[in-house]
Amino acid sequence: MEANQIKQNVVARAIAAKLASRKLLQLNAETKNKILAAMADAILKNKDEIIFRNEIDVEAAKDAGLSEAMVDRLVLNDKRIQEMARGLRDVAALPDPIGEIIADWTPPVGVHIQKVKVPLGVIGIIYESRPNVTVDATGLCLKASNAVILRGGSESISSNHTIVKIVSQAAYSQGLPEGAIQFIETTDRQAITELIKLDNLVDLIIPRGGEEMIRTIRQQATVPVLSHGKGLCHTYIDKTADLDMAKKIAFNAKCQRPGVCNAMETLLIHKDIAKNILPELCGMYKEKGVEVRGCPITKTIVPQVTDAKETDWSTEYLSMVLSVRVVESLDDAINHINKYGSGHSEAIITKDKQAAEKFLNEVDASAVFHNASTRLHDGSVFGLGAEIGISTQKLHARGTMGIKELTTTKYIVHGNGEIRE
Amino acid sequence: MEANQIKQNVVARAIAAKLASRKLLQLNAETKNKILAAMADAILKNKDEIIFRNEIDVEAAKDAGLSEAMVDRLVLNDKRIQEMARGLRDVAALPDPIGEIIADWTPPVGVHIQKVKVPLGVIGIIYESRPNVTVDATGLCLKASNAVILRGGSESISSNHTIVKIVSQAAYSQGLPEGAIQFIETTDRQAITELIKLDNLVDLIIPRGGEEMIRTIRQQATVPVLSHGKGLCHTYIDKTADLDMAKKIAFNAKCQRPGVCNAMETLLIHKDIAKNILPELCGMYKEKGVEVRGCPITKTIVPQVTDAKETDWSTEYLSMVLSVRVVESLDDAINHINKYGSGHSEAIITKDKQAAEKFLNEVDASAVFHNASTRLHDGSVFGLGAEIGISTQKLHARGTMGIKELTTTKYIVHGNGEIRE
Repeated sequence: MEANQIKQNVVARAIAAKLASRKLLQLNAETKNKILAAMADAILKNKDEIIFRNEIDVEAAKDAGLSEAMVDRLVLNDKRIQEMARGLRDVAALPDPIGEIIADWTPPVGVHIQKVKVPLGVIGIIYESRPNVTVDATGLCLKASNAVILRGGSESISSNHTIVKIVSQAAYSQGLPEGAIQFIETTDRQAITELIKLDNLVDLIIPRGGEEMIRTIRQQATVPVLSHGKGLCHTYIDKTADLDMAKKIAFNAKCQRPGVCNAMETLLIHKDIAKNILPELCGMYKEKGVEVRGCPITKTIVPQVTDAKETDWSTEYLSMVLSVRVVESLDDAINHINKYGSGHSEAIITKDKQAAEKFLNEVDASAVFHNASTRLHDGSVFGLGAEIGISTQKLHARGTMGIKELTTTKYIVHGNGEIRE
Repeated sequence: MEANQIKQNVVARAIAAKLASRKLLQLNAETKNKILAAMADAILKNKDEIIFRNEIDVEAAKDAGLSEAMVDRLVLNDKRIQEMARGLRDVAALPDPIGEIIADWTPPVGVHIQKVKVPLGVIGIIYESRPNVTVDATGLCLKASNAVILRGGSESISSNHTIVKIVSQAAYSQGLPEGAIQFIETTDRQAITELIKLDNLVDLIIPRGGEEMIRTIRQQATVPVLSHGKGLCHTYIDKTADLDMAKKIAFNAKCQRPGVCNAMETLLIHKDIAKNILPELCGMYKEKGVEVRGCPITKTIVPQVTDAKETDWSTEYLSMVLSVRVVESLDDAINHINKYGSGHSEAIITKDKQAAEKFLNEVDASAVFHNASTRLHDGSVFGLGAEIGISTQKLHARGTMGIKELTTTKYIVHGNGEIRE
């Protein structure tokens, strides 16, 4: 497609989504849930076609020499298709976020005011490889009565195309307003550049992908962006910590799944307790295959560890590497976290309630934990349902984001002829 | 100052504000209210100095040939200084927005989770002429435990400088952490460009000024921006409207104060009722000095009105001008509003409850009114206290914004050794 055609195509899709978003306001919870269930059924019923179309993407990815990990993300097998369908049913089972009355009052002027949750309107999802996002994101957007514009990666174009066709047909047959699911077919990057600047038509962009992709979109977009944040998380073991608990949590926070945003990257330990816990903890890490990079004091206690460099304190490893620093005090720990942390998830292990309160209050992060693992910061562990990601920004959404963050509010005012005097 | 010096100065102030913002977390409501009261006292006590310094700005503005309206905005007299002091006391009287527990639950994993209101951190206020903003904005930011960086206009530099000196001294003497009020002294515009890009130090920018200034800041800022939106507001008189109520509201919405964002710019009237109301209403407008610009049908009913052009439907007059259009139906009215409106405040006058519900649901605006004037959309009329402005954006803050919008949230999690299995 030529540049001009791409622009026209993206604008046309955004206009269609906007028009559909108005009709979406009329759908009740029951209809939305029927639509989601029909989408789930259709995915299962058309499993073979999806797998067939997915194989085209997988073969192309192998031919193009993509890494095994990259190819694995692309693959849709029986199990993953079941998961996509179950995901839609889980979203259907969530309470309807729309129409909730957050506040209801009558000020002296006499009108009756309600602050009500309403849809955002049109949400653009820009994502890479994983074709399951096509279904997951669409389900969440529709449940919150938003129209959705999907822009997947070129690696999964054949899978995405088929999935969109299948779920759209099912959804429209159950009363979803025509146009509420838009799929941008061109894999030209210009389509992204156009989409993120349509602030008159698109209400929110959610980028799902690598840090670089998210940064670029944030810099160029005029549409508001909601995205998953980087996680440089710490665990601080205070001088009065229960040592067994501290070891258990510090091991879990690093090792249970090191490649995710809420895994620990740096362990801070109070100087009074470092000798009592570091040797055994470092032994546990070594056995599990974790490379420990320590500060000079850590090295005097466990000489075998590697030297930590200044850059280690600001590195999100997302792998079996851990930096360890012995600190002078609780204040020292808080300052280190506020200096190097990414505002994601931070934990203190202590028996001292005052120290815990100080840490929880003064550490600037989306979630702070006392005597628990940072790995718990997750929408489903928190009991909030499907998660879009964890935000480290402070406006609109902070911490785990779910369906509620895909809504806005509206003041609805009923009067009886009231005017401004 | 040289470019490099300006940058260093702005960065140094932002760092000082960030450090102070951490100490602000320790202030309780009582201390914050004492600080605000001391600031109010100090303003009254140093009234003469403020007026003396303000006269320097006013003289310079007159010499520079600024318009009378511009000069008037600059002036601080006895009455306006009283208002500034009273504003601070009103903010002190508001409930503390910090520490409020929004949600509190224990999911199956066993930890106790609280979602709590916390300060944003550092807020940059960029404003023009009116020196009272120096006090109003500082009071709101401090009440929500935020540090503030003030950047006023060059026209009011002498007034602002003195006001900041007086209120800072009073605030610090009552325990405000040193550095929590920062004032950028240079009037070079580069200071703004630097400030709005310090996303590691500044958590929010609030621009207060003209549309052009806000747009430029929005485009260039990497720090999130919260701002007052343009108001192109409509009143729609439905076919079953109470005619007396409709006239009263339509007159109020246009004439009570035409220069503000929630005043009506376009009146829509159902075709079945137009003949019964337009002649008298146009007479009322004429008497008040409102220029009516009508659609062709309006002109057949009231031939004296001017012709409305296509551009009239998208013009925010902010003056004694009104465009009037006769519509075919409720749907026609909703479509007109969703096409031309700015998402600010929209009203329907009708006795038909179903028509009202449809309008309130389908019109995409921050506040929708049934049988009331759009002029009521205001923080103080709504009973919400001091207003920063009315937002037409959908993320974080929509509609009238007050102190609550100067906060964010944090998940505080208490555990007893819980880990991710």
